[in-house]
Amino acid sequence: MNHAQIEALLNEVHSGSTSVADALERLRNLPFEDLEFAKVDHHRALRTGMPEVIFAAGKTSAQVAAIFERMAKAGGNVLATRASQEMYAAVKAAEPRAEFHETARAITLKQTDAPAGRGTVAVVCAGTSDLPVAEEAAVTARLMGNTVELVADVGVAGLHRLLAQQQTLRTARVLVVCAGMEGALPTVVGGLVHAPVIAVPTSVGYGASLGGVAALLGMLNTCVPNVSVVNIDNGFGAACVASLINHL
Amino acid sequence: MNHAQIEALLNEVHSGSTSVADALERLRNLPFEDLEFAKVDHHRALRTGMPEVIFAAGKTSAQVAAIFERMAKAGGNVLATRASQEMYAAVKAAEPRAEFHETARAITLKQTDAPAGRGTVAVVCAGTSDLPVAEEAAVTARLMGNTVELVADVGVAGLHRLLAQQQTLRTARVLVVCAGMEGALPTVVGGLVHAPVIAVPTSVGYGASLGGVAALLGMLNTCVPNVSVVNIDNGFGAACVASLINHL
Amino acid sequence: MNHAQIEALLNEVHSGSTSVADALERLRNLPFEDLEFAKVDHHRALRTGMPEVIFAAGKTSAQVAAIFERMAKAGGNVLATRASQEMYAAVKAAEPRAEFHETARAITLKQTDAPAGRGTVAVVCAGTSDLPVAEEAAVTARLMGNTVELVADVGVAGLHRLLAQQQTLRTARVLVVCAGMEGALPTVVGGLVHAPVIAVPTSVGYGASLGGVAALLGMLNTCVPNVSVVNIDNGFGAACVASLINHL
Amino acid sequence: MNHAQIEALLNEVHSGSTSVADALERLRNLPFEDLEFAKVDHHRALRTGMPEVIFAAGKTSAQVAAIFERMAKAGGNVLATRASQEMYAAVKAAEPRAEFHETARAITLKQTDAPAGRGTVAVVCAGTSDLPVAEEAAVTARLMGNTVELVADVGVAGLHRLLAQQQTLRTARVLVVCAGMEGALPTVVGGLVHAPVIAVPTSVGYGASLGGVAALLGMLNTCVPNVSVVNIDNGFGAACVASLINHL
Amino acid sequence: MNHAQIEALLNEVHSGSTSVADALERLRNLPFEDLEFAKVDHHRALRTGMPEVIFAAGKTSAQVAAIFERMAKAGGNVLATRASQEMYAAVKAAEPRAEFHETARAITLKQTDAPAGRGTVAVVCAGTSDLPVAEEAAVTARLMGNTVELVADVGVAGLHRLLAQQQTLRTARVLVVCAGMEGALPTVVGGLVHAPVIAVPTSVGYGASLGGVAALLGMLNTCVPNVSVVNIDNGFGAACVASLINHL
Amino acid sequence: MNHAQIEALLNEVHSGSTSVADALERLRNLPFEDLEFAKVDHHRALRTGMPEVIFAAGKTSAQVAAIFERMAKAGGNVLATRASQEMYAAVKAAEPRAEFHETARAITLKQTDAPAGRGTVAVVCAGTSDLPVAEEAAVTARLMGNTVELVADVGVAGLHRLLAQQQTLRTARVLVVCAGMEGALPTVVGGLVHAPVIAVPTSVGYGASLGGVAALLGMLNTCVPNVSVVNIDNGFGAACVASLINHL
Amino acid sequence: MNHAQIEALLNEVHSGSTSVADALERLRNLPFEDLEFAKVDHHRALRTGMPEVIFAAGKTSAQVAAIFERMAKAGGNVLATRASQEMYAAVKAAEPRAEFHETARAITLKQTDAPAGRGTVAVVCAGTSDLPVAEEAAVTARLMGNTVELVADVGVAGLHRLLAQQQTLRTARVLVVCAGMEGALPTVVGGLVHAPVIAVPTSVGYGASLGGVAALLGMLNTCVPNVSVVNIDNGFGAACVASLINHL
Amino acid sequence: MNHAQIEALLNEVHSGSTSVADALERLRNLPFEDLEFAKVDHHRALRTGMPEVIFAAGKTSAQVAAIFERMAKAGGNVLATRASQEMYAAVKAAEPRAEFHETARAITLKQTDAPAGRGTVAVVCAGTSDLPVAEEAAVTARLMGNTVELVADVGVAGLHRLLAQQQTLRTARVLVVCAGMEGALPTVVGGLVHAPVIAVPTSVGYGASLGGVAALLGMLNTCVPNVSVVNIDNGFGAACVASLINHL
Repeated sequence: MNHAQIEALLNEVHSGSTSVADALERLRNLPFEDLEFAKVDHHRALRTGMPEVIFAAGKTSAQVAAIFERMAKAGGNVLATRASQEMYAAVKAAEPRAEFHETARAITLKQTDAPAGRGTVAVVCAGTSDLPVAEEAAVTARLMGNTVELVADVGVAGLHRLLAQQQTLRTARVLVVCAGMEGALPTVVGGLVHAPVIAVPTSVGYGASLGGVAALLGMLNTCVPNVSVVNIDNGFGAACVASLINHL
Repeated sequence: MNHAQIEALLNEVHSGSTSVADALERLRNLPFEDLEFAKVDHHRALRTGMPEVIFAAGKTSAQVAAIFERMAKAGGNVLATRASQEMYAAVKAAEPRAEFHETARAITLKQTDAPAGRGTVAVVCAGTSDLPVAEEAAVTARLMGNTVELVADVGVAGLHRLLAQQQTLRTARVLVVCAGMEGALPTVVGGLVHAPVIAVPTSVGYGASLGGVAALLGMLNTCVPNVSVVNIDNGFGAACVASLINHL
Repeated sequence: MNHAQIEALLNEVHSGSTSVADALERLRNLPFEDLEFAKVDHHRALRTGMPEVIFAAGKTSAQVAAIFERMAKAGGNVLATRASQEMYAAVKAAEPRAEFHETARAITLKQTDAPAGRGTVAVVCAGTSDLPVAEEAAVTARLMGNTVELVADVGVAGLHRLLAQQQTLRTARVLVVCAGMEGALPTVVGGLVHAPVIAVPTSVGYGASLGGVAALLGMLNTCVPNVSVVNIDNGFGAACVASLINHL
Repeated sequence: MNHAQIEALLNEVHSGSTSVADALERLRNLPFEDLEFAKVDHHRALRTGMPEVIFAAGKTSAQVAAIFERMAKAGGNVLATRASQEMYAAVKAAEPRAEFHETARAITLKQTDAPAGRGTVAVVCAGTSDLPVAEEAAVTARLMGNTVELVADVGVAGLHRLLAQQQTLRTARVLVVCAGMEGALPTVVGGLVHAPVIAVPTSVGYGASLGGVAALLGMLNTCVPNVSVVNIDNGFGAACVASLINHL
Repeated sequence: MNHAQIEALLNEVHSGSTSVADALERLRNLPFEDLEFAKVDHHRALRTGMPEVIFAAGKTSAQVAAIFERMAKAGGNVLATRASQEMYAAVKAAEPRAEFHETARAITLKQTDAPAGRGTVAVVCAGTSDLPVAEEAAVTARLMGNTVELVADVGVAGLHRLLAQQQTLRTARVLVVCAGMEGALPTVVGGLVHAPVIAVPTSVGYGASLGGVAALLGMLNTCVPNVSVVNIDNGFGAACVASLINHL
Repeated sequence: MNHAQIEALLNEVHSGSTSVADALERLRNLPFEDLEFAKVDHHRALRTGMPEVIFAAGKTSAQVAAIFERMAKAGGNVLATRASQEMYAAVKAAEPRAEFHETARAITLKQTDAPAGRGTVAVVCAGTSDLPVAEEAAVTARLMGNTVELVADVGVAGLHRLLAQQQTLRTARVLVVCAGMEGALPTVVGGLVHAPVIAVPTSVGYGASLGGVAALLGMLNTCVPNVSVVNIDNGFGAACVASLINHL
Repeated sequence: MNHAQIEALLNEVHSGSTSVADALERLRNLPFEDLEFAKVDHHRALRTGMPEVIFAAGKTSAQVAAIFERMAKAGGNVLATRASQEMYAAVKAAEPRAEFHETARAITLKQTDAPAGRGTVAVVCAGTSDLPVAEEAAVTARLMGNTVELVADVGVAGLHRLLAQQQTLRTARVLVVCAGMEGALPTVVGGLVHAPVIAVPTSVGYGASLGGVAALLGMLNTCVPNVSVVNIDNGFGAACVASLINHL
Repeated sequence: MNHAQIEALLNEVHSGSTSVADALERLRNLPFEDLEFAKVDHHRALRTGMPEVIFAAGKTSAQVAAIFERMAKAGGNVLATRASQEMYAAVKAAEPRAEFHETARAITLKQTDAPAGRGTVAVVCAGTSDLPVAEEAAVTARLMGNTVELVADVGVAGLHRLLAQQQTLRTARVLVVCAGMEGALPTVVGGLVHAPVIAVPTSVGYGASLGGVAALLGMLNTCVPNVSVVNIDNGFGAACVASLINHL
């Protein structure tokens, strides 16, 4: 029951064509989704430039392609994360405009320009192993209307390379910092900038990295006050939070 | 070596009173902190309204009082977290203007008005057990110049109470959501609003709550894309991130 | 806005004293709690005999007494779990009819007869160490209107004592089985009966019991299909589930 | 030694054809299984409609088919869980009446009508990823004689979709709620209904989901008093408990 | 119903004073504990010299004294483990013959001579910190009739001290080896002897010892084939297993 | 330097052909292995019937075959555990007398009769899933000279089947009890017998079984005093300890 | 901006061709890496003989070959760890001088002689399963200019073999000790020598070895004061630390 | 049997007063400790300046004083770690020359000058909370003959403070770096220097620091190749390793 339907009902009460008792009964069971929820969701997608998203890992190529095609028809932007080259082939057959971002393991379809973010989102990572997560964040953030600066190869073991990028780091309005192994990069970057840092632990490492848990714990225990954390390898989620902040 | 000193050195080189070789030697050892770092830190504190902070847990009342007094002399705002009534007595003796926030276990001294945040910071928690963490966040955020709305008693087990607060939640520019036990509140709140949510797991619970780890894991696995997480019981840290975003 | 208020509003629309547009506006912001929620909660409490509950651990005696007194005034039954003798003294001063169950560490006030459960709830535990949790379950279940049979000292290490109690176990409509250490009792009991078994791991044990986690894992891995599990030491919660089933 | 044999022995004692000493000796070694156990098990299967069950994961297709065929000959219903399409082909060759439930990964053979449950079992899950576990629960519950309502796509991140299903949720006599990631759904559903909720954590997720442990911990720490929990991905077990309750 | 009672019943059937039907009914409900169980337990205690045991930790002095006194009256040996000096005072008042073993934190009452073990039980530990656990094992084993050789101060960091004790180690019929920290001692000792080694991890250590879990894991992963393991700090249990083997 | 060499040296000292100083120098560096160690190891192998063992998992078929062949030449018995059918083919080609035990995943070569154990070793497990571990224990124990009784399908969920096997369990001199999932079987068996029980947790299970850790913890927390534990799936190790005890 | 460039700038200031203001501006933005950092890194590589390194695991053969070739062109030594035979084929095609170390899973290219270490590096491990990690350490240490003694097959279960190697162990200037399972070897070796021991836990083991975590914990809890630890399976890292010490 | 006794025996063989057979018998049982072990230990202590050490935590003041006094009589240096002020009072009464280091919680007695280390040991930590561990390392290293530079307040969140200390860090021959929370400091310091870094995780932190486990994991996963790690809070152990390296 939407705005128009409630208005109609009230008009019927006003005109007497529906009794107060009947109207009361219909309103009592007023489904919650008929209130402002749907619109909110809609407005939010519009304002934040959030695309429709498929988490492709664990799905078949056929499933990914089918979902992608259906989402594409809704007219907005579409993003499939954790996608393989083979999945892309299937998607491409169904929707030829889809693009593949190999390192990011992401398939995108851009049908509309998301509203532009107000500043730059810096996506920072240490080494080539963290690049898939960082690129996933970058691709996501760009599709959501943000200007992205990707700063790679700035691990804490070689501070000079990181310090050389200070200008870029400091001009970003919000930063996404990805790191595996000991996960120290967000803390060090957080100490260099005064913008919010979204930390993404990656599963890069072996042995005591425990699949990214070591990096995750490191980030949660950060001693700088401008860092918050998302799930291991969740470049997509970090980009969403960053984009949201960048659109404030 | 600050800006003025470098300028003086260059003038000496220009005038010939210092040789190029000598100047080169002095510049070679240019300490890093003489560059732009200090200013950055200073500007940052000014812009974000960050107070000087003492983590009081594990310190003696005398230590807390001594540090508090020294910090107070610097003229800025001071905040001691995880403080006891006894610590407050010691601080009060040294600095009579200090205030105690009992539930928040925080001592504050407000000497300057921090720059005002642009919107409202909502601090949300489920029950009375989570209040100390939520109040720590609220006290911190207020001291940093933010208007804070505290929304308590809105656990996910009684959705109607939470839904009744939607207006408050939706008008906040950024939210801090504290929850112990299963830690579901930030996810549910995140689904209701379109602002960034900083999730704070609390150590409230017993048995399988594992001291807050269950809530922490729950928040990291959230299925909404506007939530990031800080350490268990870290109300202070969440408020810092939220204030930073609210001052963007 | 309750039923009467909505009815009044509709009458105003009908009479024309309120315009459709104004009514629409007021209905648009209809708070969710004004719908059927509150009644549901009320009915549910009535039907299941759920008392008002205080988790006393971590609260001061004064706090427990104050909350207990306030709840008592509402006229229903009141239960404080994880309560000490000292807390009871404070409660007793405020509400002389309150009773203390020492082993169960529970304070109760029975003001009304909860609706009677349909069968017997058996509360089973192995040794004296598990008794506080079992008694918490028994006290809770009794206050909620159930006939409770407490079967103690039937650990799996001495099967004959357990088998001797088969008659009692088999006549129960639902069972609450508490066990620490290796947590095998619910599985063995589950194999002997055809009623639902609510398993409660207890924190009884040391070393590799990991505070009850060993027992919890054991119960979750049970090989019988009539066992489900609640949190460590959560005798109260198990009794609630059991009472709910016993009132079906 | 069954009832008839004991009776025969007593008759022999009575008639004197067996001496008291010999009868004593034979009774002393009376195997336990000759007492009421077997009948109990039999009655129980009849009353609860429990099928014979194969946990197919880790077995070869040939093994599954062989066990299935043997069980089928006993005349009751048969259920193989965690089965693949290839296993089904093997089973089908041996027992053509067997049916495959692809999403549920289950093979069933229905030879008898299990006694009907008294109400509806609602099986609830958030997204498509949790469907295999939810469908396993649904297939199991149906085979055990229950009317099942499957409610999918109602994650806590979009409360309005969940709230729109309240009528279905509230009319269920018992609910099975499956959720991965943060595992909040059973808590939220538990707050909406007054029936027992069997929570099933799923291994859906990545990183800090720790293979379903995050969801499991979340459910064990639930703050609602009508939820109990089974093992990760154990849709079958949850359905058994639910069916048992629904047949009370 | 014991042996005599069954005999009596059969005699009644034989004489006709009890009908077959009545006898059948009484036999049908034959409680399991009336079979051979009780005797078994009794014989076992006699054969293995097992005393009655109280796990004193977590009990009050009054409780320990009361249980101890009651057990003492049964005429067998009594052992209270994890007991304090204060508990001993209470026990002593009730049972003046009780002895206190301070390092072992054990109270014993020896009223009968347990049957002698066939060889020597060696109880081995590294340093003074592990002595409480080792002494608990030694006191337990002695009370159960074993000759015990206590070999302390033979940590793996100083192999020569351990090797100097080879004669003692090799003449033991079974060994109990206690170690905290890295828990390597049972493995090294296991490689030096050809008798069964019962390994007891102790909670001695800090940090990454995780309360004895590190030592426990080390012992479970031993590369020698004559080592099995009991719970952390479980000197009592190790002595029971060792005594059992020594009485074979 | 072996016995003969030391004797020769002493003869040289006696005859004066080697000076005391030179002899002293040679003795000072006396390698430890030249003392009694080697003989000890030899004697032990003889007395306990320990075969040469290959842990085949992770090795190539060629490697397993090569090691097996080399060991076989030493004339004793040989055992390869965790071996595949393919490995067996390679071993068979090199050593045609080798036998494969499919369920146990073990290859054996029996060239000598190990000394006979004094009693029976019972190997007990719950279901078919635990059989590979139980069979590994049985094959190992038999090769080491023990009479083995394998008791399968006696899970704690169906006590009557277990109780029906009491005679077999009670006549065993030592028992190996394998169980996955909740790992309760060794505790229940331990309560029924008075012989030492070696508990083997298996990795059978899913979800909260954590690869056998749940069963392991359950066994370590056993409340019976005749159980000790070996590593997860370590049927071989349990059989070694059991055989050692059975040869005492 | 390097040394020469700063000198040039100062000369320009001295000559007046650049104003003080302009020079100040250029110096203000002096990138940090233009200071002494680069040289330091260069010197360090020269002094410690550190090669360029590729962690090959998770990369394609083509990627490994491409990186290897590019690194080789820089003229220094190159090392690829965790490399497969297939990766070697690809590298060999690009750089024919590359060598493969099969057990170590390492590819090396030696173009220059690293400065010689001052003593011997002993690399010690227990069994054949630990050899890959030990060989990785040995290959790395040799490429970095160290004389390496590899001591294998000296597990703590057979002390005599270890003690027989004492001379080799004691003459080493630094030791790398690799061990899986219970991880006791570094502690035992540490007690035999007075040189620093770098302990490397390996992931060798199963069940409770938890992928090397058991060995890691064991080593961290060592009771000897000359042991420090690196990550699980990190033979390369241990060799780097050892080489660094050996070049002091 | 020491050197003199073996010499005497050989002289007896030479003179014929002891037969070769008798001598052989006595040598066969030659206790291992009579070989070179003791001297090795003695030499080692002399060369590395290792004091006698008491781990005071968990001991009574009387015990600490008694052990301290006995050790002092041996004439070497003595160190008690984890000692309280009260313990010091007891030690002081027994040995008036003992000194207390309050922050380090250490009692020392210096009776001899340990041999001087060859370079400087830098002990580095982030904040005041890590000081007790860092001071324990410093006090230990000094007592062992090392020149120590303590560098505090250089956390990774404020890189400029750390970079300002580069000169000190780079001139150290070996570094001990202590850090709690995220544990990133050793990695960052390791990237700045070319000396070995001994990393000490501290238990400073709360929530997800898990008592220092987060810092420990961070350090084990370091991406610099000159870092090895000791146990949580083990400042003493790190100083021992560092001193050993500094005396090479």
